Amino acid sequence: MKISVTLTKNPKPRPDENSLGFGKYYTDHMFIMDYDKENGWHDARIVPYAPIVLDPAAMCIHYAQEAFEGMKAYRHADGSISLFRPMENCRRLNSSNDRLCIPLINEDDMLQAVRELVRVDADWVPRKPETSLYIRPFVFATEPHVGVHPSATYQFVIILSPVGAYYAEGLAPVKIYVEDKYTRASKGGTGATKAAANYAQSLKAQMDAQAKGYSQVLWLDSVEQKYVEEVGAMNIFFKINGEVITPALTGSVLPGITRKSTVELLKYWGVPVSERRLSIDEIRDAAHNGKLEEVFGTGTAAVVSPVGVLGYKDEKYVINNFQIGELTQKIYDELTGIQWGTRPDPFGWVMPL
Amino acid sequence: MKISVTLTKNPKPRPDENSLGFGKYYTDHMFIMDYDKENGWHDARIVPYAPIVLDPAAMCIHYAQEAFEGMKAYRHADGSISLFRPMENCRRLNSSNDRLCIPLINEDDMLQAVRELVRVDADWVPRKPETSLYIRPFVFATEPHVGVHPSATYQFVIILSPVGAYYAEGLAPVKIYVEDKYTRASKGGTGATKAAANYAQSLKAQMDAQAKGYSQVLWLDSVEQKYVEEVGAMNIFFKINGEVITPALTGSVLPGITRKSTVELLKYWGVPVSERRLSIDEIRDAAHNGKLEEVFGTGTAAVVSPVGVLGYKDEKYVINNFQIGELTQKIYDELTGIQWGTRPDPFGWVMPL
Repeated sequence: MKISVTLTKNPKPRPDENSLGFGKYYTDHMFIMDYDKENGWHDARIVPYAPIVLDPAAMCIHYAQEAFEGMKAYRHADGSISLFRPMENCRRLNSSNDRLCIPLINEDDMLQAVRELVRVDADWVPRKPETSLYIRPFVFATEPHVGVHPSATYQFVIILSPVGAYYAEGLAPVKIYVEDKYTRASKGGTGATKAAANYAQSLKAQMDAQAKGYSQVLWLDSVEQKYVEEVGAMNIFFKINGEVITPALTGSVLPGITRKSTVELLKYWGVPVSERRLSIDEIRDAAHNGKLEEVFGTGTAAVVSPVGVLGYKDEKYVINNFQIGELTQKIYDELTGIQWGTRPDPFGWVMPL
Repeated sequence: MKISVTLTKNPKPRPDENSLGFGKYYTDHMFIMDYDKENGWHDARIVPYAPIVLDPAAMCIHYAQEAFEGMKAYRHADGSISLFRPMENCRRLNSSNDRLCIPLINEDDMLQAVRELVRVDADWVPRKPETSLYIRPFVFATEPHVGVHPSATYQFVIILSPVGAYYAEGLAPVKIYVEDKYTRASKGGTGATKAAANYAQSLKAQMDAQAKGYSQVLWLDSVEQKYVEEVGAMNIFFKINGEVITPALTGSVLPGITRKSTVELLKYWGVPVSERRLSIDEIRDAAHNGKLEEVFGTGTAAVVSPVGVLGYKDEKYVINNFQIGELTQKIYDELTGIQWGTRPDPFGWVMPL
């Protein structure tokens, strides 16, 4: 794919790497590619970061025909830059596209676009420990039409944001509320994709949980509201009596790349790990019997997020005395070590830019 | 509310009223109002129809925090213009806003905005029978941020589109496929709102049904995939052995305004009508026993849409010999008669502009 490059004439000042936050700053350039039926995906270009101009009837605003990905570029100690399993994201975006009737994008082209854009803005990849460059590819419907049907036109865009640690306070246990009223995704729905739609549906429960003093919610399945699915916008793992369990990919759970890497890492270490259905009753029983040893979420943004308290109806289960679990810490250290190049990568997960 | 008005200097040519279609043309002006935490909803204005400019990180594109409404303005024979139960739409938009953590909009202000905008573009309300001016209010998140949380800023916009009959071929039975794989909305989800998210999720089933020769799908509930919920983007009614049945508003069904009006009309006429759970098995049994007398959808766009064939798994049920049912036609005639002012309005549904 030929990507034209137009460099900015007004580079922005670099933000202070000590207070990057998450998603507060965007780099100097963006990647854009257009789709129409006649030309397919075309006009791939890197241009200065600039507003997107949409007809007020553009279908993404009315019918949410849009999906995204999230990945990161990491600065290693030698100054080089690496990606982490980027083809997994490219494949998953196409899986989202397929579910949403968005035309597929050549996965090699997607990867090329990510790599060329990061190269153009390479100086934006921060250098401070625990920082990275968050990469947000997204695709959205642009046809101006107020009737419900798949759009005839789309844009695929990639933007970049230098980020600090997802949790400003560093790796620390969070309090999670088990949501028993709202649901995240239906059986036969879009829960296994990164459809924008999934996130709109999640906000209300998130706000209610925060009002109760929790930072995120643990989602239960929408059929029986009995089996755990995800936590906030992360996958979830439970260590119960020595076995690590994460919900199986039954169609409404996002196939997370950090989730997949964690499962592979545990198998490599010989730690018992299961992908299966796990009911909230089994978790409650384990908590009551002292067998609920560790709980943690996984995702690109936070990598690993230890859970210190689970609130379910009128009960609260404190996990590992509200301390980071030994295995949780080990997984975090290993994954981030591979990502930032301070540990060996026996899996071939790291792709130099 | 004070609404500033800036008139266009370049009015568009009017489209031919014989080939308006649905959602193909937009009028000369639009309404916009902004929200931020400091000022609340502010800067209400009618301006020339123009593109919406969004930061590439605007949250509506990434997380679908956005909702809409659909209503119509009708030209009566005396040249006057009327709306149909517009406060119902204003209330429903706020119900959607509440579910999606979007700040509520004063409902009187919404109605005022609709009325003033239609007045400014009054000459765009078409005159040909069966035509109308479709009104699309919508609200969307604009904060540039790639972290998942309710946006800090929003826009509320209204656009107008002169439309012909929704079905180009006129009132005629459609073929509907009973969807048993995909679902529209989850229990605990956003199905009872006009969240943009609901529509993204619906496209795949719609495309699959069209590939099988059907025009829309009949959605089943996402828990048991047993109870009927909606058809395409409409509510659904079944006349079985003299009783008219529409699915009860159990949380995943849109509370349609044409649905509500149809129920009220049937009660006024003394026709037995029930809002209750209705299983696909009950419908199949009725079809087999010759008791499935009429089926029709209701919605703002098509008003009433007769169903001539229901396809379920390997079976096909032909309804009323693929003819428009007597009651279906009567409801269509009455509702459209009230809307276009050719029949009396004993309910007080019509609001002169």
